[in-house]
Amino acid sequence: MPSKNRFTVVYSLTGSKKEAAEKAKNICVEQTIEFPYNLVADKYIRDSIVGRIESIKTFGKKYSATISYANETAGVELTQFLNVVFGNTSIKPGIRVERMLPPTVLLKKLKGPRFGISGIRKLTGIYDRPLLCSALKPMGLSVKELAGLAYKFALGGIDIIKDDHGLADQPFSPFEKRIEAVCKAVNKANKETGFKTLYAPNITADGLDTFKRAKFAKASGAKSLIISPGLAGFENMRMIAEDDSIGLPLFYHPAFHGSYVVSPDSGISHYAFFGQLTRLCGADAVIFPNFGGRFSFSEEQCAHIASGCREKLGILKPALPGPGGGMTFDRIPYMKKFYGNDAVFLMGGGLFSPGTDIVDNCRKFRVLAG
Amino acid sequence: MPSKNRFTVVYSLTGSKKEAAEKAKNICVEQTIEFPYNLVADKYIRDSIVGRIESIKTFGKKYSATISYANETAGVELTQFLNVVFGNTSIKPGIRVERMLPPTVLLKKLKGPRFGISGIRKLTGIYDRPLLCSALKPMGLSVKELAGLAYKFALGGIDIIKDDHGLADQPFSPFEKRIEAVCKAVNKANKETGFKTLYAPNITADGLDTFKRAKFAKASGAKSLIISPGLAGFENMRMIAEDDSIGLPLFYHPAFHGSYVVSPDSGISHYAFFGQLTRLCGADAVIFPNFGGRFSFSEEQCAHIASGCREKLGILKPALPGPGGGMTFDRIPYMKKFYGNDAVFLMGGGLFSPGTDIVDNCRKFRVLAG
Repeated sequence: MPSKNRFTVVYSLTGSKKEAAEKAKNICVEQTIEFPYNLVADKYIRDSIVGRIESIKTFGKKYSATISYANETAGVELTQFLNVVFGNTSIKPGIRVERMLPPTVLLKKLKGPRFGISGIRKLTGIYDRPLLCSALKPMGLSVKELAGLAYKFALGGIDIIKDDHGLADQPFSPFEKRIEAVCKAVNKANKETGFKTLYAPNITADGLDTFKRAKFAKASGAKSLIISPGLAGFENMRMIAEDDSIGLPLFYHPAFHGSYVVSPDSGISHYAFFGQLTRLCGADAVIFPNFGGRFSFSEEQCAHIASGCREKLGILKPALPGPGGGMTFDRIPYMKKFYGNDAVFLMGGGLFSPGTDIVDNCRKFRVLAG
Repeated sequence: MPSKNRFTVVYSLTGSKKEAAEKAKNICVEQTIEFPYNLVADKYIRDSIVGRIESIKTFGKKYSATISYANETAGVELTQFLNVVFGNTSIKPGIRVERMLPPTVLLKKLKGPRFGISGIRKLTGIYDRPLLCSALKPMGLSVKELAGLAYKFALGGIDIIKDDHGLADQPFSPFEKRIEAVCKAVNKANKETGFKTLYAPNITADGLDTFKRAKFAKASGAKSLIISPGLAGFENMRMIAEDDSIGLPLFYHPAFHGSYVVSPDSGISHYAFFGQLTRLCGADAVIFPNFGGRFSFSEEQCAHIASGCREKLGILKPALPGPGGGMTFDRIPYMKKFYGNDAVFLMGGGLFSPGTDIVDNCRKFRVLAG
């Protein structure tokens, strides 16, 4: 075990044992001094700043290396921590970040999920089953049509209604008009049903508009937000999450982020990317492509995401794993068994297929998940 | 050719011709309505909003599909444009963005590189050879040591001295003290030599600190900046680039961005990622791993990056390609031939190996590139 003045990262490495050991050694240098080791005269830099191999083990058919770094290499900044974890090494094939153990001093500085699983349960008033989510789509519908759809979803008892991640500020449904109309529709339904359905407007936008939209959504009565930090940036997501003047649950969407996990041997693991990184940046819930749908994630990868969302990460709250994509009614019982109750099930198009009465379809979804 | 109301993206696709055609069809839906096509009643959505296959061709051993999208799917926002280009599809293996042709209306809104190649040449006063760059490192040196190194680089005629991307705000060289000391050292050398060496502080930081550091650097007399948007976010980079109160050339660094290009069949091409996306976000110069060093980019991939940086992209200025990583003196003649003069050659550790006199090594570098 490294000292408390060092943090650790577990990498998986392709190649023979000898090649893996060589890769681990290169990571220690690349991620810190990025300089010919034999030209470094300074003992402090050689002994403390350069990464240190703590162990190399077999890892399935590959090897894994646990490497420790001095806390001061990261300052007390998330961006620089991530830079030490994977900055230049992200460019090298055959090396994958499996797990991060950030310095305690950094974890204490970050706020992480503001609500987490228990906070979202409290807001929705649902404690004994997976939460249900659907998305307002398809792109191209008018504000009136989207608000009408939201009203039906809420009447049928969907717990969280999110904008499709493709709804931004297009002419067919301008952001401000959409948010006002949908908030109104969901409020109306909530009054009628007694449910506490949350609407999550998509605040992903250019530059400062992300912040403006979050504030507009809050002022319009939205009770949660969704953002794609692959587009708006992880730091902007974190600023939204940590902004007390906003203070709404934040749903993470993986748009434009797939490249980090698409290769089995390079990039970042499903556990670390969707479970750890998103929480470091304040995600209360994490939308990801479910296994068996039109995406290629395996059951094992999805289980890793769920673990990453829920497992201990310093004092940060656990986040709700949110599998979605190609979900249908017949799969709900197995998913409930697979993910347990502490999850949010996202059904989009699948909610339209069983019959033409959307409200009735939503009620069936609620019964199946109950 | 699609109409001027539509923009196009070229994707490369793995699989047989039939599989590639199926993938292209799926992209058209996934990137827009993300909804069962047969359940869409609205003719406008079916005919205009859903992506349209313009052509499918062979592409080496793969296929390429040119797909057009209605401009209104992207609003007039870069984030939503990128979402339509590759949002959810980034999660699917075997699909790669090869090239983007953004809507003219978006290109007109974006400012792109403020200086571009000719602007940086004017600032450095070097018109007839590749520009020379080196990095302040290794991490762990004190402010005094880094400033001493910068002084030597500048005396020796390095055109651009950048912070190593691993220098942030660590205890061994706090940001503000470092920037002040290095600016002073480079100014002193410039007065002695008559050269116009630019210092590029690394402004990559958490949240608003990126903006604070850019402003501090400007106020301290820095004449350029370097940022890793893989960490700080592309949108934050673009805001810095477009901020008239800053107005300094911006160097792009690829830290934490490697996962987008690490797979040959998934992610984004070297051309589109390093040459197009960086310019859309305002990069005046693009640092990337050179072929033949310790990274795995091929000559062909590096040539694509250089083309992407220089080729027409609406009215946006061309950017300087900046190959670096494992560069040594003996490779300079070939690199000069390969990249031509409109490039910036980054030599880090290699500048320390030829002899103990750093100033003399820099002078040799200048002669070799001249």
